[in-house]
Amino acid sequence: MNQTPSVGIIMGSDSDLPVMKAAAEILQFFGVSFELTVVSAHRTPQRMMQYAETAKERGLKIIIAGAGGAAHLPGMVAAITPLPVIGVPIKSSNSIDGWDSILSILQMPNGVPVATVALNAAKNAGILAAKILGASDESLSKKITLYMEQLKKEVHEKVEHLQSGGYPNNFDV
Amino acid sequence: MNQTPSVGIIMGSDSDLPVMKAAAEILQFFGVSFELTVVSAHRTPQRMMQYAETAKERGLKIIIAGAGGAAHLPGMVAAITPLPVIGVPIKSSNSIDGWDSILSILQMPNGVPVATVALNAAKNAGILAAKILGASDESLSKKITLYMEQLKKEVHEKVEHLQSGGYPNNFDV
Amino acid sequence: MNQTPSVGIIMGSDSDLPVMKAAAEILQFFGVSFELTVVSAHRTPQRMMQYAETAKERGLKIIIAGAGGAAHLPGMVAAITPLPVIGVPIKSSNSIDGWDSILSILQMPNGVPVATVALNAAKNAGILAAKILGASDESLSKKITLYMEQLKKEVHEKVEHLQSGGYPNNFDV
Amino acid sequence: MNQTPSVGIIMGSDSDLPVMKAAAEILQFFGVSFELTVVSAHRTPQRMMQYAETAKERGLKIIIAGAGGAAHLPGMVAAITPLPVIGVPIKSSNSIDGWDSILSILQMPNGVPVATVALNAAKNAGILAAKILGASDESLSKKITLYMEQLKKEVHEKVEHLQSGGYPNNFDV
Amino acid sequence: MNQTPSVGIIMGSDSDLPVMKAAAEILQFFGVSFELTVVSAHRTPQRMMQYAETAKERGLKIIIAGAGGAAHLPGMVAAITPLPVIGVPIKSSNSIDGWDSILSILQMPNGVPVATVALNAAKNAGILAAKILGASDESLSKKITLYMEQLKKEVHEKVEHLQSGGYPNNFDV
Amino acid sequence: MNQTPSVGIIMGSDSDLPVMKAAAEILQFFGVSFELTVVSAHRTPQRMMQYAETAKERGLKIIIAGAGGAAHLPGMVAAITPLPVIGVPIKSSNSIDGWDSILSILQMPNGVPVATVALNAAKNAGILAAKILGASDESLSKKITLYMEQLKKEVHEKVEHLQSGGYPNNFDV
Amino acid sequence: MNQTPSVGIIMGSDSDLPVMKAAAEILQFFGVSFELTVVSAHRTPQRMMQYAETAKERGLKIIIAGAGGAAHLPGMVAAITPLPVIGVPIKSSNSIDGWDSILSILQMPNGVPVATVALNAAKNAGILAAKILGASDESLSKKITLYMEQLKKEVHEKVEHLQSGGYPNNFDV
Amino acid sequence: MNQTPSVGIIMGSDSDLPVMKAAAEILQFFGVSFELTVVSAHRTPQRMMQYAETAKERGLKIIIAGAGGAAHLPGMVAAITPLPVIGVPIKSSNSIDGWDSILSILQMPNGVPVATVALNAAKNAGILAAKILGASDESLSKKITLYMEQLKKEVHEKVEHLQSGGYPNNFDV
Repeated sequence: MNQTPSVGIIMGSDSDLPVMKAAAEILQFFGVSFELTVVSAHRTPQRMMQYAETAKERGLKIIIAGAGGAAHLPGMVAAITPLPVIGVPIKSSNSIDGWDSILSILQMPNGVPVATVALNAAKNAGILAAKILGASDESLSKKITLYMEQLKKEVHEKVEHLQSGGYPNNFDV
Repeated sequence: MNQTPSVGIIMGSDSDLPVMKAAAEILQFFGVSFELTVVSAHRTPQRMMQYAETAKERGLKIIIAGAGGAAHLPGMVAAITPLPVIGVPIKSSNSIDGWDSILSILQMPNGVPVATVALNAAKNAGILAAKILGASDESLSKKITLYMEQLKKEVHEKVEHLQSGGYPNNFDV
Repeated sequence: MNQTPSVGIIMGSDSDLPVMKAAAEILQFFGVSFELTVVSAHRTPQRMMQYAETAKERGLKIIIAGAGGAAHLPGMVAAITPLPVIGVPIKSSNSIDGWDSILSILQMPNGVPVATVALNAAKNAGILAAKILGASDESLSKKITLYMEQLKKEVHEKVEHLQSGGYPNNFDV
Repeated sequence: MNQTPSVGIIMGSDSDLPVMKAAAEILQFFGVSFELTVVSAHRTPQRMMQYAETAKERGLKIIIAGAGGAAHLPGMVAAITPLPVIGVPIKSSNSIDGWDSILSILQMPNGVPVATVALNAAKNAGILAAKILGASDESLSKKITLYMEQLKKEVHEKVEHLQSGGYPNNFDV
Repeated sequence: MNQTPSVGIIMGSDSDLPVMKAAAEILQFFGVSFELTVVSAHRTPQRMMQYAETAKERGLKIIIAGAGGAAHLPGMVAAITPLPVIGVPIKSSNSIDGWDSILSILQMPNGVPVATVALNAAKNAGILAAKILGASDESLSKKITLYMEQLKKEVHEKVEHLQSGGYPNNFDV
Repeated sequence: MNQTPSVGIIMGSDSDLPVMKAAAEILQFFGVSFELTVVSAHRTPQRMMQYAETAKERGLKIIIAGAGGAAHLPGMVAAITPLPVIGVPIKSSNSIDGWDSILSILQMPNGVPVATVALNAAKNAGILAAKILGASDESLSKKITLYMEQLKKEVHEKVEHLQSGGYPNNFDV
Repeated sequence: MNQTPSVGIIMGSDSDLPVMKAAAEILQFFGVSFELTVVSAHRTPQRMMQYAETAKERGLKIIIAGAGGAAHLPGMVAAITPLPVIGVPIKSSNSIDGWDSILSILQMPNGVPVATVALNAAKNAGILAAKILGASDESLSKKITLYMEQLKKEVHEKVEHLQSGGYPNNFDV
Repeated sequence: MNQTPSVGIIMGSDSDLPVMKAAAEILQFFGVSFELTVVSAHRTPQRMMQYAETAKERGLKIIIAGAGGAAHLPGMVAAITPLPVIGVPIKSSNSIDGWDSILSILQMPNGVPVATVALNAAKNAGILAAKILGASDESLSKKITLYMEQLKKEVHEKVEHLQSGGYPNNFDV
């Protein structure tokens, strides 16, 4: 990618990629440029420091960080960069039902916020990033409004499908 | 307030004010304009709809919404406005240790993210709002960097205080 | 359906249908008229408002609302309509063992109750609706009493089956 | 009370009275007749059986049952009477943060629903009872609509109070 | 069975049989007589009352009761009979990880104890019943001591098997 | 105490005494002989072994063991003695709401049951011990039946007190 | 094994071996000598006492103990030996999501610490043992530093693999 | 302190000092040298990196790190230094009953262990550090054995006090 992207998507391990790629896909849908890489707080702490320290000067506007278990990546990056950081708790193997990653990311101390989304909700992290960029980009903001309209339309189509399907006489979808 | 503020701080009840005013105070510190009011999802649903539907056209950039118990305000507002919404889970009386408000705000479905911060962490909601605005406002971004430096300095002062206090010989702070 | 039904069964997504149809089936068994549709609090908030605002004037007596995750549908509908609302917490994918939907539906603030049933217990929501309607409909109330007798009879049949099966000498059912 | 009341409010112990009386007070406000007594599932099981078995023939329409810890009263009464039963989980001493009473009341098996409200939410149990009776009593239904309007009005008054108080310049309520 | 058994094994549903038969099997191993049947607190409350009220006069010494979800059977039986009652929490479908049945059985109020064992631990319920009967039956007590010796012996055999298997050079068991 | 008591009450620390003495008091009420002492699994493991190994030969019939936190005392004693062991989870300081002691006592593996009672429910442990001894002691069994009648009577007295107190006109107890 | 090993790896049951062998494998990798055997706190309490009492005099430096459910082995061994004990909570069948073993091992009282690692994290227990031995063994400490470098290198290789794979254009790994 | 201490005690904030000083006190009791200071992962990330990177070369043998909420300090330090790190979860204000700090410290990924002790158990962290140092320091190991004997003796004294106090006749301690 030759031009600096707006969003940096990072994750603690490449095993998080099946979850985290949903962030990339929705950003692509919105036409928001991004980069995606692996940055491990626990195995590559110096790389994490450097990534966070240079993020702003490289031109990134937002960082999306996903991690599982004792998930320190989003909070540590938020401790270093002035950029807003969105945290995605991931329900990894040996996780305790996801509680560990949720609490490790959410319960940040005063002064160092992480914008936490739902368990495994990388897609929502991407949408949140677009909403944040849209706060100062009217054309992006319009795309988000259209996207929300599209969600609405899909529900209305399902409503019609249910009704034409003869509910309540037919319970099979 | 004669000029449109950047941030709307809303809460489900005026009993949430002792928690939520920390968001206002830190925004004031950063020089970010805001409005603060009560919008109850459950007692004033129409007001909530209207607040959310007009937020963007009124010029708001971000909404901070705090609520306790079955906390529906942040998620419902996020369902209506294209603006980014920051949710503050509040540990109200009869709350179940705060789990109810955390999960009601955090676990939003795909398509409708809420940027959730820690339990009662209205101050962090304010800082997050400033970071978001700072993503497209260099002078604000610099204030945030200064603020983070200030946090650092306070720690260093405490370190010195501890050392001059004669630790480990004297355990009283 | 040409005559106004007594019960409105709504759910946040058509993916909730496999759980929610049990409410429809038991109402059909009791001869209670109902309608069933998708109303998403988060993707179609205006539709939700309208559904809730018109429910009573359309002739509905009770609303059964099922939702998963940060489940706002039952509580938001209860905030708008004077009708009693029964909430069904659904254990959706990426739910945190169902805790999120239970707490989001159950922990409503004073003034806005939701009659919550067990996780995924749409059948019980239907029975509860029938019991509520039966409070002013003696013939329906009798059907409920018969249904409870039938549950009893099925247990007694299993007891006999177990005993004739030669317990405790034979442990295979 | 010489005329048969509509609602029976029962609780496992008189130590539950400080919580449960909120149900009585709101019913009194709505002009709904009720009786209030102690019925212990564990210390007076026969009394509980008799209360539940005769409730409908005595003319009761709804039972509100509150209990703490391993809270069996609401579910056991619901197993016996065809009337709708509203369960109030109570956070008693030695309760485990209320989880025990919530789960003991909420997680009823198929066939035997209990309409569960929030922890300690006896007031909501009363409102729910009124909403249920209002489903076939237009004058009561109107009172509920007025009550909901009143809740709304109180919020609007607080909004005005906040604004006239000069927010955000003055953070003391 | 022509002679009155010592232990009554009851369960809320025949779907609990795959778990509960382990109690029967271990009692058979210890030569302790028992009966096994289905008694549902919620679907057959009168049968439950009668079972509990006559248990002692019929000659039973102990009751083992298993149930899932809002598990009221063990506590209700304990409320009626002076016999000791052992409760087995069962992780049924739609249970919330078993927490509901554990808390519904364990958290009994003062005056009405239930001897609770681990989730699904019907075998331990049987052993506990044998230990209780063994407190006044020396020959049974000796069988328990032998059983405990047998458990010990099995561990020692595994220890030898591991060592002869060449640990740590060979990690496959 | 010159005659061997029937019940041994042990606890991990003398700080558990305020909770555990309720077991002693109720046994005294039932006329069941007991001894009470401190046996720490973690600070006096050899004493614990010896206590458990000699309990039966000394003439004890039942052991009641209370402990908090990582509560190993009840399970370890149950691993050594063929006597039935009743475990009392204690909510000690720095306990995590009592979950640690409950799970450490309840979740024993197959072969080694502990009869667990509710959090801090030492009184119920005493009653359970009396019920167990009553299984082979008719006069004690009668006392338990009387005690259960007494509980019932106290509820009936409270019922009368409530009614004579003029409920629902007077909500103060 | 003719020379006394440095680390004793013990587990409550041979069914824990698939989890616990990861401790052995990583110690082998670091060239740390160890023994591995089954020691059950509940089925072989005397063997456990003896193992713990002789561990130090036999020359062991550290004990790694894994157990599931009401996991008493690590804490009991720590109560007897002056050696440091590392506890591995194991998510066994019928465990309550692992919470029981975590809390039974972690929440030890003052005076008797257990160094607890994550659920099922036997590999980390082995690494921790190596770090502890490395505190007084420079050559081992260097191996650990190299191991940490290796972890870092593997991340960097994955980073390169991702980038050469053409992200974000290609989302399949 | 002019000679390099063996143990570094660090904490995220000076508000953790009332909990963490117990580690210092017990190390002082054992005659183990230590230093104590504030190192915040979130407010002074560079200081944390430097502390961890230089710890071993400065001569430290072990690091004890305490933190509350989303507690990243122990895990981040463990990611950088080859020294063993002991983590103390602290139940800070706005913590969710301590679950957040426990899970943030305990659930570390493979390769980066933290030796976690109980909630607020700084004293146990100090004892664990002494046990670790004692693994290669016979005189320290003897002090630990003496300390464990002392704990035992205190229990025996309490046993005697209880017995001379006339139990069970006198329940006041």
